[in-house]
Amino acid sequence: MADSLYDFLKQCVTEDRLQRFEDVLTHRTRHLTLVLENIHHEHNASACLRTCDCFGIQDVHIVESNNSFSPNREIALGASQWLTIQRYRATESGGQQSAEDDNYSTTRHCLRQLRDAGYRILATSPRQHSVPLHDVKMTQRTAVVFGAEQLGVSDVAVAEADELIHIPMYGFTESFNISVSVALVLQRLVARMRQDGVDWKLAPEETQVLREQWVKQTLGDKLEPLCRRFESDQQTH
Amino acid sequence: MADSLYDFLKQCVTEDRLQRFEDVLTHRTRHLTLVLENIHHEHNASACLRTCDCFGIQDVHIVESNNSFSPNREIALGASQWLTIQRYRATESGGQQSAEDDNYSTTRHCLRQLRDAGYRILATSPRQHSVPLHDVKMTQRTAVVFGAEQLGVSDVAVAEADELIHIPMYGFTESFNISVSVALVLQRLVARMRQDGVDWKLAPEETQVLREQWVKQTLGDKLEPLCRRFESDQQTH
Repeated sequence: MADSLYDFLKQCVTEDRLQRFEDVLTHRTRHLTLVLENIHHEHNASACLRTCDCFGIQDVHIVESNNSFSPNREIALGASQWLTIQRYRATESGGQQSAEDDNYSTTRHCLRQLRDAGYRILATSPRQHSVPLHDVKMTQRTAVVFGAEQLGVSDVAVAEADELIHIPMYGFTESFNISVSVALVLQRLVARMRQDGVDWKLAPEETQVLREQWVKQTLGDKLEPLCRRFESDQQTH
Repeated sequence: MADSLYDFLKQCVTEDRLQRFEDVLTHRTRHLTLVLENIHHEHNASACLRTCDCFGIQDVHIVESNNSFSPNREIALGASQWLTIQRYRATESGGQQSAEDDNYSTTRHCLRQLRDAGYRILATSPRQHSVPLHDVKMTQRTAVVFGAEQLGVSDVAVAEADELIHIPMYGFTESFNISVSVALVLQRLVARMRQDGVDWKLAPEETQVLREQWVKQTLGDKLEPLCRRFESDQQTH
């Protein structure tokens, strides 16, 4: 008989699938995390989630002070179900304030929470003193913030950031598409993180939490009856 | 009096604009070129054009054997007007053949033309023997082919390619969004091209052709009356 619910449930998932979890977990990281601030177009936001999964970035923080974001199924291709997504909504920050203050406080809430968790905050913005992407080091835990398609990151994100960064550009166009920017920055920072010799992998207890979540995720509709069966088996023995 | 039509026209464009042309031309290249094969979604194709402009890639080849592609104004943000875009359409390849043969011949026509112009052909595909992006050298003139969103590059593109390449991925998702893939590959190959010490810049006569095109582009509706005025001035003097 299985000792724990996890041991019981994992018997119902194929060996190939379990092996895939282990392969993916080896590359998962929380050393780098992504913050999306008020992305308008679903297809952009979803492409960003897909990119995070491909690069092994586990955590995504979505600030929705004025956009309600729901990943587009077709584009995310199921990527979001394997990520840890934390959402910050204007209505949740509460208080008696104007809509503008409310927007501000949602971003601020997200970024201060990340700073409290030990993250350095990078905001992508072409303003003065912005550091070119290739000069950014990854020795510290880092959260990188991207803003809305037309306006870029908010003033609050700029004020809260430890550093501003930008991707050097050589043409007439002043900016990349947002999902392209995210991918270019993540590709570079992930490569740099691996070069910089820091301990970027997940801790054993973190991988176990994900392993359990992913097994449950995989079981889908079968999960609930299996849990009931495990519980009744426990009571019988 | 201006000696040539170009000398005459450039007087009608601001100094800042002309300086911008020179800055952009310094970074323009034909050492690397992009081939898009039957991209379905306009927003993806347009994001790719924007990326090419940002990275200084002048030439884009668009194979449209089963999609009619017209860059989305909003997303290309005018990028396509500064690029040299060559389109290959099924109907233009002509002949008495099935629709499938016709599709094949459009891609083949494009890639053989590029090979005749001295390009090595890379096709992006995760098949066997595909080389990881980071191992691709850029000492040779290179055309890189990307295929449709769901299906990837065609069998014909694979058959015509000198090498297959792929972006290593570490998650559950099997592929990046197409515009993301293009950006990641171009970012890497452009960086590599600059490292590999090859002569990737445009020749003086190529920059002059673009300079003249860009001046005309900038003048828009004013171009035609200005040309007529130059012609009549020439006849008078």
